[in-house]
Amino acid sequence: MGISERLARLRAEMEKRGVDIYVVPTADFHQSEYVGEHFKAREFITGFTGSAGTAVITMDEARLWTDGRYFVQAAQQLSGSGVELMKMGEPDVATLKAYLTETLGPGRVLGFDGRVLAMREGKEYEEIASSKDAKIVYDCDLIDTIWEERPPLSKEPIFALALEYTGETAAEKLTRIRGKMKEYGASMHVLTTLDDICWTLNIRGNDVAYFPLVLSYALISMDSMDLFIDEEKLNDEIKEELKKDGVMFHPYNDIYEEIKKISAEQTILLDPSKVNYALYNNIPAGIRKVEKPNPEIAFKAVKNAVEIKNIRQAQIKDSVAHVRFMKWIKENIGKLEMTELSVADKLEEFRVEMGNYLRPSFAPISSFGEHAALPHYSPSPESNAMLEKGNVLLTDTGAGFYEGSTDITRTYALGEIPQEIKDHFTLVAISNLRLGVAKFLYGTTGMTLDMLARKPFWDRNLNFNHGTGHGVGYLLNIHEGPADFRWQYRGGEVCPIEEGMIITDEPGIYIEGSHGIRLENELLACKGEKNEYGQFMYLEAITYIPFDLDAVNPELMTDEDKKLLNEYHKKVYEIVSPYLTEEEAKWLAHYTREIE
Amino acid sequence: MGISERLARLRAEMEKRGVDIYVVPTADFHQSEYVGEHFKAREFITGFTGSAGTAVITMDEARLWTDGRYFVQAAQQLSGSGVELMKMGEPDVATLKAYLTETLGPGRVLGFDGRVLAMREGKEYEEIASSKDAKIVYDCDLIDTIWEERPPLSKEPIFALALEYTGETAAEKLTRIRGKMKEYGASMHVLTTLDDICWTLNIRGNDVAYFPLVLSYALISMDSMDLFIDEEKLNDEIKEELKKDGVMFHPYNDIYEEIKKISAEQTILLDPSKVNYALYNNIPAGIRKVEKPNPEIAFKAVKNAVEIKNIRQAQIKDSVAHVRFMKWIKENIGKLEMTELSVADKLEEFRVEMGNYLRPSFAPISSFGEHAALPHYSPSPESNAMLEKGNVLLTDTGAGFYEGSTDITRTYALGEIPQEIKDHFTLVAISNLRLGVAKFLYGTTGMTLDMLARKPFWDRNLNFNHGTGHGVGYLLNIHEGPADFRWQYRGGEVCPIEEGMIITDEPGIYIEGSHGIRLENELLACKGEKNEYGQFMYLEAITYIPFDLDAVNPELMTDEDKKLLNEYHKKVYEIVSPYLTEEEAKWLAHYTREIE
Repeated sequence: MGISERLARLRAEMEKRGVDIYVVPTADFHQSEYVGEHFKAREFITGFTGSAGTAVITMDEARLWTDGRYFVQAAQQLSGSGVELMKMGEPDVATLKAYLTETLGPGRVLGFDGRVLAMREGKEYEEIASSKDAKIVYDCDLIDTIWEERPPLSKEPIFALALEYTGETAAEKLTRIRGKMKEYGASMHVLTTLDDICWTLNIRGNDVAYFPLVLSYALISMDSMDLFIDEEKLNDEIKEELKKDGVMFHPYNDIYEEIKKISAEQTILLDPSKVNYALYNNIPAGIRKVEKPNPEIAFKAVKNAVEIKNIRQAQIKDSVAHVRFMKWIKENIGKLEMTELSVADKLEEFRVEMGNYLRPSFAPISSFGEHAALPHYSPSPESNAMLEKGNVLLTDTGAGFYEGSTDITRTYALGEIPQEIKDHFTLVAISNLRLGVAKFLYGTTGMTLDMLARKPFWDRNLNFNHGTGHGVGYLLNIHEGPADFRWQYRGGEVCPIEEGMIITDEPGIYIEGSHGIRLENELLACKGEKNEYGQFMYLEAITYIPFDLDAVNPELMTDEDKKLLNEYHKKVYEIVSPYLTEEEAKWLAHYTREIE
Repeated sequence: MGISERLARLRAEMEKRGVDIYVVPTADFHQSEYVGEHFKAREFITGFTGSAGTAVITMDEARLWTDGRYFVQAAQQLSGSGVELMKMGEPDVATLKAYLTETLGPGRVLGFDGRVLAMREGKEYEEIASSKDAKIVYDCDLIDTIWEERPPLSKEPIFALALEYTGETAAEKLTRIRGKMKEYGASMHVLTTLDDICWTLNIRGNDVAYFPLVLSYALISMDSMDLFIDEEKLNDEIKEELKKDGVMFHPYNDIYEEIKKISAEQTILLDPSKVNYALYNNIPAGIRKVEKPNPEIAFKAVKNAVEIKNIRQAQIKDSVAHVRFMKWIKENIGKLEMTELSVADKLEEFRVEMGNYLRPSFAPISSFGEHAALPHYSPSPESNAMLEKGNVLLTDTGAGFYEGSTDITRTYALGEIPQEIKDHFTLVAISNLRLGVAKFLYGTTGMTLDMLARKPFWDRNLNFNHGTGHGVGYLLNIHEGPADFRWQYRGGEVCPIEEGMIITDEPGIYIEGSHGIRLENELLACKGEKNEYGQFMYLEAITYIPFDLDAVNPELMTDEDKKLLNEYHKKVYEIVSPYLTEEEAKWLAHYTREIE
């Protein structure tokens, strides 16, 4: 069935339901970063496979809004489909909201599946409709009625993450959550984010690509927890454990009816940026709501002592794998045939050898030369480039070990590389190293610390157009809030860096058509000296992989920068060499030698 | 009349009006930083003269809340008065709100003059009262009824600031303000902040200490402006000018009645953090309000080309005065008798000589040795210390020239000083210099740039407990929003640095009982290169006074730091020396020599 036939069928369904405009975003019911196959409705109706975009279909038009990363790909995939590409951010292109405002009119009906829209977004649509005397219908998943081969919801089994990995029982976590509910005056807490539910219950699954999450919703009250989940995924042992913690099981989609029955005395804590529009709207009108970020967000961002011990171990394992990979690629470039995909597999092999390995922690990036200049490039069989001497290989990949998820980027010189690339590499290394040893007073946010990473770029009228770092989940989402390193204020509260947070440090530079460089370590926030000025904090790099000295130009570095690089390399050698053969250690000694 | 008699009379008035608890804050009707003599009601009823504090009087208690700067002074001044000191921030001291919550009960009445409380504060009191079934009365200035010798409202004449100083007519400013009103859908704008009114109308006066402001309120509509002001202060020429711009005059306090008569069709733009509680409450209930920061705040923070030209000139004049003062003090310490107050007068003399001088732009700080360790110390005849060799003099003072207000701090070594003081001085200089040459992308806020000034401190487990810098008004308030340099997030929006903003750069260090050092330049935000990454910006120091080389330890400086200091001193010499005698210039050459 081609796109035009799908569109025709959708329009027939729209007519039946009296819907004039139908919106299809890219999302599941949980505002997840990656979505499972079942949820790729926007791809089904447009043919566009990118990770971001919203389709709007009327009786005589179909349009797709997507951002600059996907203009080329979307234009190719939409070609001949009858779907018009709307390039977001281009000056003469109407925004989605402007288009809806223009297209809606008295008595017309805007339809969407309210489960795949965040509450705030749904409310905006509601306002647009009411301002034009139009109506909305949000309980209609029209794609479902026409998608015959729709992949079913995932049935993958759930596993328990043992206390040796989590460091805190579900019962203890629920006690902390209930403490926050009490503080906020709430008697019930609606929790819909998959990572927060998995963190709370110490369970993991396989319902989303890369992130070991479980499709579920939860209603937490003061003495029990209603979990909406496909019970078939749970084995008896896990069920028994969860029951002990007061968990009661309900079918996955029943929450939409159950929430209508909540008694009028309840006060519900919910996160307006996380709960979907349909669920929010099903809460009975009179019920008091406390709208706050989910307390689980701040809890899980601060890793406990057991998690930190594990994460340090995961980082060492991945560092050993990376060192072996670096040695292999340096010794074999020009001798063996290598492609972006084949070297990604090789790195994966070295990781698997380290043991206790689950899966990659996100979609791996392995890009050579000019491909590395596209920060979101991921190799496919069609794009897969051969590696050659004279340029760089950038790998931005991660491992899901039981000891935690990693997210590491290195860029390697293949053979001798041009001076300009060395200079850029050195700049990125300086930026990474300076942020990596930040000292600061408690209360400081990533918005202040980001200056350390930006200064070497800004001083040269350069920049990189992405955040410098993000929090990392423990076998959960790879991008985990609330802490990050970024200079642009994006509204809302800015949160301080807390002891026990793990945040990436990943500056980069991207020269179109030529090369790209990024160096990413993970940093652990620690407590330092406490004195009359307050509690000092510091960051510690816990990733131990050389910054390729074949690509470093010491002349661009201050004495302090050289000292930082030498100290980092000394630590890399000390920590990684005990895991290596004598020959490997000798090689590492050379690549972690002091520079002057 | 002693404090106890005043309290007795107040209680008699409270009884007459049925008020059980009466609150007296330190404020005028405009949320001004400094208040005129007429407004010192809290000082009248407690005897405490500090610049911050709130008194609460019940039938059998009187308490004063103030902060750490004033614990010693307040304890002395309240001694024997019957007023109990409440040390804010101390762990076992109830907050003002907790005290009110505890003391109020069903049917009891909380009274205050609603004109001296910000709307937000008044609303908080309202909530406390309603939560305890108590009432509030806000139209009662009970202090006025008992204060027989109360200084009248200021009658000082108003003067017009010519276009050669302002660079923009009142008509042009009103057009910009009305553009914002239109953007916000407002038809009327309540403006109560004195600096915003003076800026809009290009008038200045003398109703507040140091800041040349005029007591007034304004209602701006799309075609006229109602100005509530003591008309006697205006001469005919200014009146005629203002009438041409559509200004109509009303007695100062009439706004409280006039605002009740606003027609129901109006939409009022007001700033909830600026409008006072009484005025806000007098707005008829049905009127639609747009609550936003006053648009004048962002407008006046960005100085126009004429203002910048003038401000550069004001800074040069003040720099010449400072250089002469520095030479005088260096050459005469140990020879002439000098005190904190006498040297402050001397610096003032050098400023007056420069011409076109109005007055100091804020209360001057002149502090020697251990006094300099108190950031808010200001010398009085009682505290006035003799200057001696072996320690430092800190002067934090400012001039109001017609060409603009300055705010400059320097610290001078008197004779040979101990190594520790030199090391601290060097640290402060490094911090100041690094921030002073910041380069950044447009969109960056002072919260990010502050890292440049904090890093040298934080790397050594040191800090200074105040912001690094604040905006500076043009013959208006010396502390002018919205931009600043500070690392702590205080809620609300964080605004980017705009081209044409003037912000101070004033790191410091304070060692109790020994010494204090602060170095303050003013910085101008400028546009730099625009390229594929965006619009680059940079800061330029426009204050040209040496950082005392007698107090610099080059061994603590990186090569880059030495370069920054040498470049700054080179510029100081180039810009200031043309205004000096040959002998003065020779002296300056020595104090701006290159260091290695």
